[in-house]
Amino acid sequence: MAELKKLTIGVLTSGGDAPGMNAAIRAVVRTALANNMQAIGIINGYTGLLNGEFRPLNARDVGSILQRGGTILQTSRSKRFEEPAGQREAIRNMNEAGIDALVVIGGEGSLKGAHALSQQGIKVVGIPGSIDNDVWGTSISVGADTAMNTIMDAVDKLRDTASSHQRAFLVETMGRNCGYLAVMAGIVCGAEITLVPEMPVTVKEVADVIEDAYKRGKNHAIIINAEGSPIPTMELAAALENMDVGFKTRMTILGHIQRGGSPTAYDRLLASRMGVKAIEALVEGKHGVMTGIHGDSVVFVPLEDVISNKREVNKEYYHMARVLAR
Amino acid sequence: MAELKKLTIGVLTSGGDAPGMNAAIRAVVRTALANNMQAIGIINGYTGLLNGEFRPLNARDVGSILQRGGTILQTSRSKRFEEPAGQREAIRNMNEAGIDALVVIGGEGSLKGAHALSQQGIKVVGIPGSIDNDVWGTSISVGADTAMNTIMDAVDKLRDTASSHQRAFLVETMGRNCGYLAVMAGIVCGAEITLVPEMPVTVKEVADVIEDAYKRGKNHAIIINAEGSPIPTMELAAALENMDVGFKTRMTILGHIQRGGSPTAYDRLLASRMGVKAIEALVEGKHGVMTGIHGDSVVFVPLEDVISNKREVNKEYYHMARVLAR
Amino acid sequence: MAELKKLTIGVLTSGGDAPGMNAAIRAVVRTALANNMQAIGIINGYTGLLNGEFRPLNARDVGSILQRGGTILQTSRSKRFEEPAGQREAIRNMNEAGIDALVVIGGEGSLKGAHALSQQGIKVVGIPGSIDNDVWGTSISVGADTAMNTIMDAVDKLRDTASSHQRAFLVETMGRNCGYLAVMAGIVCGAEITLVPEMPVTVKEVADVIEDAYKRGKNHAIIINAEGSPIPTMELAAALENMDVGFKTRMTILGHIQRGGSPTAYDRLLASRMGVKAIEALVEGKHGVMTGIHGDSVVFVPLEDVISNKREVNKEYYHMARVLAR
Amino acid sequence: MAELKKLTIGVLTSGGDAPGMNAAIRAVVRTALANNMQAIGIINGYTGLLNGEFRPLNARDVGSILQRGGTILQTSRSKRFEEPAGQREAIRNMNEAGIDALVVIGGEGSLKGAHALSQQGIKVVGIPGSIDNDVWGTSISVGADTAMNTIMDAVDKLRDTASSHQRAFLVETMGRNCGYLAVMAGIVCGAEITLVPEMPVTVKEVADVIEDAYKRGKNHAIIINAEGSPIPTMELAAALENMDVGFKTRMTILGHIQRGGSPTAYDRLLASRMGVKAIEALVEGKHGVMTGIHGDSVVFVPLEDVISNKREVNKEYYHMARVLAR
Repeated sequence: MAELKKLTIGVLTSGGDAPGMNAAIRAVVRTALANNMQAIGIINGYTGLLNGEFRPLNARDVGSILQRGGTILQTSRSKRFEEPAGQREAIRNMNEAGIDALVVIGGEGSLKGAHALSQQGIKVVGIPGSIDNDVWGTSISVGADTAMNTIMDAVDKLRDTASSHQRAFLVETMGRNCGYLAVMAGIVCGAEITLVPEMPVTVKEVADVIEDAYKRGKNHAIIINAEGSPIPTMELAAALENMDVGFKTRMTILGHIQRGGSPTAYDRLLASRMGVKAIEALVEGKHGVMTGIHGDSVVFVPLEDVISNKREVNKEYYHMARVLAR
Repeated sequence: MAELKKLTIGVLTSGGDAPGMNAAIRAVVRTALANNMQAIGIINGYTGLLNGEFRPLNARDVGSILQRGGTILQTSRSKRFEEPAGQREAIRNMNEAGIDALVVIGGEGSLKGAHALSQQGIKVVGIPGSIDNDVWGTSISVGADTAMNTIMDAVDKLRDTASSHQRAFLVETMGRNCGYLAVMAGIVCGAEITLVPEMPVTVKEVADVIEDAYKRGKNHAIIINAEGSPIPTMELAAALENMDVGFKTRMTILGHIQRGGSPTAYDRLLASRMGVKAIEALVEGKHGVMTGIHGDSVVFVPLEDVISNKREVNKEYYHMARVLAR
Repeated sequence: MAELKKLTIGVLTSGGDAPGMNAAIRAVVRTALANNMQAIGIINGYTGLLNGEFRPLNARDVGSILQRGGTILQTSRSKRFEEPAGQREAIRNMNEAGIDALVVIGGEGSLKGAHALSQQGIKVVGIPGSIDNDVWGTSISVGADTAMNTIMDAVDKLRDTASSHQRAFLVETMGRNCGYLAVMAGIVCGAEITLVPEMPVTVKEVADVIEDAYKRGKNHAIIINAEGSPIPTMELAAALENMDVGFKTRMTILGHIQRGGSPTAYDRLLASRMGVKAIEALVEGKHGVMTGIHGDSVVFVPLEDVISNKREVNKEYYHMARVLAR
Repeated sequence: MAELKKLTIGVLTSGGDAPGMNAAIRAVVRTALANNMQAIGIINGYTGLLNGEFRPLNARDVGSILQRGGTILQTSRSKRFEEPAGQREAIRNMNEAGIDALVVIGGEGSLKGAHALSQQGIKVVGIPGSIDNDVWGTSISVGADTAMNTIMDAVDKLRDTASSHQRAFLVETMGRNCGYLAVMAGIVCGAEITLVPEMPVTVKEVADVIEDAYKRGKNHAIIINAEGSPIPTMELAAALENMDVGFKTRMTILGHIQRGGSPTAYDRLLASRMGVKAIEALVEGKHGVMTGIHGDSVVFVPLEDVISNKREVNKEYYHMARVLAR
């Protein structure tokens, strides 16, 4: 009577935390239960897979988490899991615990780990969770919308002061090597100029744009600088202080604030849809894939493709920001 | 020397206001200027078109409005403009003022007016702006994302009290005959049940769902009721008060709060993209169309189609909400 | 060796929940521990005292609750505890559990219960927690500042729409028989008129004020109506709809949203100070008192006085609101 | 008929902007008008007084500004006005414009300027506006409550990430030489340790506190560092990175975000009360004073005293923060 054993799904979050990860966990667990499966939470990402930190999850365990930032399963980065030996140990632990399939919620690096497990025969479905929005194969990742709104709220506050004094504000955004957050922030914050890792720029060019804004009668200017941009924020701030660009420049480093906060409606919906679809994939026998948004639909993208392609910055948006700031 | 006369674009907002309308106005004006056109703001919607309330807009006039709710051009509903005589008068006013083309930002009714003008030879491009998201031909309208987040923030607050007492909360959302906001709110707020105009439901069904949630050990329940649903909110509140469903029920009518507030990043981006595209359409000689989101792209949808089709509620989301609330 | 037994403090929350109650619980528990006492949480208010729902609390149990709305100890209203028999039973339960003293966090009714226990020899200290701010003996209660900000944020959103249409908005605020929240909201929201339980008013007076605002060229008007005011909100809305006051009127009933949300800095500080002082009172042998804010200081007010006096509405603020709205 | 000339009040904002300054301007103008006076706005602080940038203000000019951050009158710091020659010029300009009395809204330096004018015979009333809360003679200044809430919201977001990873967060707050904001933030954010200009501290002490929190099982730690503290933020971040304190440390510099945003209910009320009282002072023939909060009342404090005393940090709060963080 093999039917007696219910299919057991493990779920973990890995890498940098992102708002909406909890909404995804909730959707994975409740959809699994609705499909007569069992759910097990793996604590602390791949580290927990290596250490056997497993916790059964029922419907109430994921109650009241939809609105919470961070991840109730905690997260980490694991060097040991990057090695084949570590991966074999993780698989042994999964087998011993009776985990039949795994849902991995995380960014680029985490999905690489998911792919490695998939290569070794584990049934894995990935969900892209990353405020940086640097995952190939989906137009947007869980957490990016919330991060964007957090940056925007901060810059809106700066603008109050800017309209009272004559000031330029330099704001550093997260994103590692990906300029997505910065470019989008540039548009929604009405920035004069945005610096991203993908586009070369000089201090002189930045100074010219700011001075030009000043001369056109703007009473303030916003500069968005992605953390991996050609000019480090401290360096740019120091350089502008020594030039006469009309405005005096002040610096803000938002840091990890961008990772936190209650997820927006968009992120809760996205995470919920992807969590539901991840389980549907497993029900239909699909794995080795990631849930991705294409147009209005959630589709399945091979993990193989996800990890072998690199997302490009949208240059149309980059130029649009410039026109709209004038 | 006909070239001496610059192309002049009129822009107006009409119908119920929606967050992001100002961002659209800003994008229309600045993109027009960048294309060597002139921009004229029409105050108070079609009423202003009838009364000749015109105001030239330059780049600074639309500064610092990106983040503001409502619409700086004000809005109204005009009975007179619905009549052919009114429309002819509007056209005369436009001609006298030298307005060559018109961008109309608004919902269903406003786009009907835009179509009427287009039929009579005016170059018009529409931009869907409506928190109800009831416009056919675009996956989302400007303002809907902000409204959704406003509803969600309100329900998140209710949940604090709900987790401290044993309570059911009944929340009425806007949307007239369209259940979109309510269905989405149902998912992102983790509602037990959502009532929409498009789906029949009885008080008994609602009561059963709530009682079932109580018996499954939930310490609170959320009911979302769209304003045009089969059961009016007051009636439902009164009925539940007289039944024993485990929880006591409390009612909240958010009302016009849902229309206000600073637009979200999503709405600012959407409005900016659509504003840019509306001018690009006119530059390319396209008109009689509305900017619509299809997948990740902004496309042009004939106004004819927009006004002759009716948007349907997404039943997949409706059912998803039920599974996820368990 | 009587010294071996540490003093044990029970803590409960009672009545309507208020933001900051968790901050008070945290302060009570951590200050108790810092004074070498033990802390026991009583679940569900006086009901839990009657049912013996006790839970030891250590420093980690009250971690990460400072920012959460509602109360982790849950709350209720208990009819049975209002009777002497119920109170005797509660005292028996406390004695059996070795609870030496009690901290009660709640509003008017809850402090009445605290006084009753105190009369029967129990060492009790009260902390005023009530969004209505209806407790005599303290200039402000825990939760009122957060509620005020919630109301204000809602009205700020209404004003966006109001400045786009020509509208009057009627907003009902909580407060039972106390007009405090409404009067304060009137000032901070820039309302044209505020209706409170403590001051007579007619529909005609309201209509005149609104019409006058319209005639002075205001493009919107805000009416704040306390829930216990002379004219029920529905009735006032209906009456204004049938009169010509210039603006059309729209209604919003905020309901329990006003109880929820993360506490403001003010409420966290107030709750923390009062929690610390409540334990200091017990250390110094003081009881039968409530912590109250007088000027900048936390003082001890006899529970006897608290329950036998009635707080008055501040008429200076009431009139100030009128002058500032012009 | 000397009565024909109405008393004319000038109002200006000076120094760093603070949320609530607009609410104070509104109260000054509307109370002046209600007392049959005229109001003139002076643009750009003392610089505008020197340049004769005057603008008559009526009731509608200060409409819809209650909720806006920054100051509609703009602000600046003026070196020239610090010299007696500059002050004489300012007085000439005031006389020419028929300004009979002046209301100055600003911080320490701005009130020094107000005192200088008062010494030379000008009728001046000051209103303390400063997020730093560094003004002697009032328990709180306009803007400090909003700044506190802004810092708190930011740290609340950090805590989401902190509870998902094992992290310590180092947050720099504004306040120049005054530790007020930092100490209060320490309490309301539940910080492990707060560094202020007024109290000596070593890197080792900070490290010990953090390590101790780690050993007690906390899953995160918050360090608040006032900008003028003994250890600069960058230096502290670098030092902690090289020590093993259990947690990894991440840095956030909020910068001018703390100055912006819509004022809280507390700040709107405070600013409104002080604006009303400033005019009442002038009506009663009082000047050379500042409005200050003592207990629950607004009192008048001689500008002489305000500028010759230095506000001290509240050490009771400093120690309270330590106990509550355990």
